Amino acid sequence: MPIITLTTDFGLKDHFAGAVKGAIYSEMPEVTLVDISHNVSPFHITEAAYIIQNAYRNFPKGTIHIIGIDSERNPENKHIAVKLDGHYFVCANNGIMSMITRTIMPEELVEINIHDRIKTNFTELDVFVQVACHIARGGKLGVIGKPIQEIKAITGIMPVISSEQKQIIGNVIYVDNYGNVITNITRRLFEDVGKGRSFIIQAKRAHFKQIHQHYSDAINFDLEKTKREEDGKKIALFNSSGYLELAIYKSNPSTVGSASTLFGLDYRDTISVNFE
Amino acid sequence: MPIITLTTDFGLKDHFAGAVKGAIYSEMPEVTLVDISHNVSPFHITEAAYIIQNAYRNFPKGTIHIIGIDSERNPENKHIAVKLDGHYFVCANNGIMSMITRTIMPEELVEINIHDRIKTNFTELDVFVQVACHIARGGKLGVIGKPIQEIKAITGIMPVISSEQKQIIGNVIYVDNYGNVITNITRRLFEDVGKGRSFIIQAKRAHFKQIHQHYSDAINFDLEKTKREEDGKKIALFNSSGYLELAIYKSNPSTVGSASTLFGLDYRDTISVNFE
Amino acid sequence: MPIITLTTDFGLKDHFAGAVKGAIYSEMPEVTLVDISHNVSPFHITEAAYIIQNAYRNFPKGTIHIIGIDSERNPENKHIAVKLDGHYFVCANNGIMSMITRTIMPEELVEINIHDRIKTNFTELDVFVQVACHIARGGKLGVIGKPIQEIKAITGIMPVISSEQKQIIGNVIYVDNYGNVITNITRRLFEDVGKGRSFIIQAKRAHFKQIHQHYSDAINFDLEKTKREEDGKKIALFNSSGYLELAIYKSNPSTVGSASTLFGLDYRDTISVNFE
Repeated sequence: MPIITLTTDFGLKDHFAGAVKGAIYSEMPEVTLVDISHNVSPFHITEAAYIIQNAYRNFPKGTIHIIGIDSERNPENKHIAVKLDGHYFVCANNGIMSMITRTIMPEELVEINIHDRIKTNFTELDVFVQVACHIARGGKLGVIGKPIQEIKAITGIMPVISSEQKQIIGNVIYVDNYGNVITNITRRLFEDVGKGRSFIIQAKRAHFKQIHQHYSDAINFDLEKTKREEDGKKIALFNSSGYLELAIYKSNPSTVGSASTLFGLDYRDTISVNFE
Repeated sequence: MPIITLTTDFGLKDHFAGAVKGAIYSEMPEVTLVDISHNVSPFHITEAAYIIQNAYRNFPKGTIHIIGIDSERNPENKHIAVKLDGHYFVCANNGIMSMITRTIMPEELVEINIHDRIKTNFTELDVFVQVACHIARGGKLGVIGKPIQEIKAITGIMPVISSEQKQIIGNVIYVDNYGNVITNITRRLFEDVGKGRSFIIQAKRAHFKQIHQHYSDAINFDLEKTKREEDGKKIALFNSSGYLELAIYKSNPSTVGSASTLFGLDYRDTISVNFE
Repeated sequence: MPIITLTTDFGLKDHFAGAVKGAIYSEMPEVTLVDISHNVSPFHITEAAYIIQNAYRNFPKGTIHIIGIDSERNPENKHIAVKLDGHYFVCANNGIMSMITRTIMPEELVEINIHDRIKTNFTELDVFVQVACHIARGGKLGVIGKPIQEIKAITGIMPVISSEQKQIIGNVIYVDNYGNVITNITRRLFEDVGKGRSFIIQAKRAHFKQIHQHYSDAINFDLEKTKREEDGKKIALFNSSGYLELAIYKSNPSTVGSASTLFGLDYRDTISVNFE
């Protein structure tokens, strides 16, 4: 029996997530339901895109991912179902899929057209649940939508490379639970442009001349404990999702501070990498 | 195998919700457990009543709903189990059920009387889990409680209608994750009293002369994009739960503001509808 | 099929918890996954220790508990798998288990040594999931680790008893969702030292001469309702986990205040019990 996941901006207080789960279990009692996140900032396409990109690939092929962010249908916001990398995604065509589709082509892409049968002002509950359960039962995408060719892109999530390949200008695309700052600069891009040259990463109040592999690399374990500056040590690394991340070792946004608060970096802020 | 849902004010940090789930799985390994909400404000009966009313009906008949809000038993707070609309509810008799029982009569109603067998200062874990699992196994309500006739009501959640039917005075009963403000004025009441007349909804700094069906109705999609005032547009609508809701299109309480912050409306504040 | 639980400081917004769940379902489609908490304060060993101690024992024997707090492996932070009280725990050897192991001896204890096969900077996803699924399939601990004798302790979570047994000096180890303050003084220690003598509990601005069994004991139900001071009434009790807790009846940290805010008590603050 397939898995259906939920990624929304419903929050965890209101009845929304519970209602959607109830509706899915009413259709398919044996399904496995998994919450990926209900705490995406309201209507925040980029956050949702980052979260679903990094979560989905850990699930088994055939999993169906409902993404409920800015999903009310209107003349400029249609509903789509996408098959890609063996997974299914049900969402609005508002850019959420574009972080994934930058590197992986959809196998199938349809604009959902079952709305004449459904009157709703709760899209996820009424439309997305129907579509997800249709897919979970082995139904074809062609039955609930008509094939389309293009998927909407989000702007401003691609870094810019200077003409002489001396600089990458990137942006903060996400701030995580530890206040660590994730940029849109991937390891791959960094290595392709940098080709092993020395560099300085500049990010407002902070700069970095090295990129590490683990958070613990912030600490020199050869020193005695009392001689180390354990907490609050800054570090740049490629995170487990392959993005350049600026971090504070063992940070806590609500007490000692974090990369976001200490460097003064927030969503959309600029990070530059200057190569020698 | 039936579903057991949880609606509590435990929050999501402490061990409480995990402990209750562990206890249920220990009794019934094959049950399906669903969190509706653990983020009800502490001891907030009205919030819990609103959430459970709007969530429960999406679940299959036979689902058992544990509601753990203000549930410690004392001389004025007894425990009840209710069968209603094909669903079961296990909670304290503190008004939580009264938003549902205003429109739907209980089929069965018992005061739980298994407390001589259970010594506890964690009601949900020790009493409600036992009762829920008893019901899930197909047990009768009569075995764990004695029939009673009346269920406690919450006061102040009913709107008032002026004697000449010219005005409805309602209140805010809930503020949702988007900061949208939900009133206790239902579509049904509005239409029964209004009978199609023109009206003005007055809510502190905001007033509305129209009620829409979708959040997107805030936007005139016939205008070019640059000529629209997309964000921060206010709108009144009947929400998916059938209540009059005052909203800001694409609001975000922690950035651009929301209906609650921008109109200055919070729980219990007054909203009036004046008919012509 | 066994249960795997998750206790982490991932928070509920990021993809981390979803990714771990996806990885587990990819390995074991039929497992039952339960979130205990993802809202442990970042890197907060004591909070995690308190939460897992109070949650785990409600689950069936054989349950596997993944604890993902400060789990990146480094020369001073090894990974362990522990069998104890019929349950399995997979975590870093950073003190998290020491609140449980103070009273219950491990049946088996190994240092995980599968890291040569796994390159990672997301420990829980890559290492802990493998270990948990190995155990869930009935695998031996000896296959994924080598036996060790000692488990790391957290310091500062044990109360101090004065030499004449006249005083217990304890500390706040946890503040719960209601703002109630939990100390490291157990009922057992209190009774062993106190031997029924009168006492005064002193905690900054508050003192208590009685310890109750239920939160409702704060209220005298014999008085008429109007004559009672219902809300904001302070009370000391042994909570359902057996710890001395200082509470405010029906508190709400974000509105009327709580024991933590009203008494000015936070994590690590001192509480003393003086016996006659």
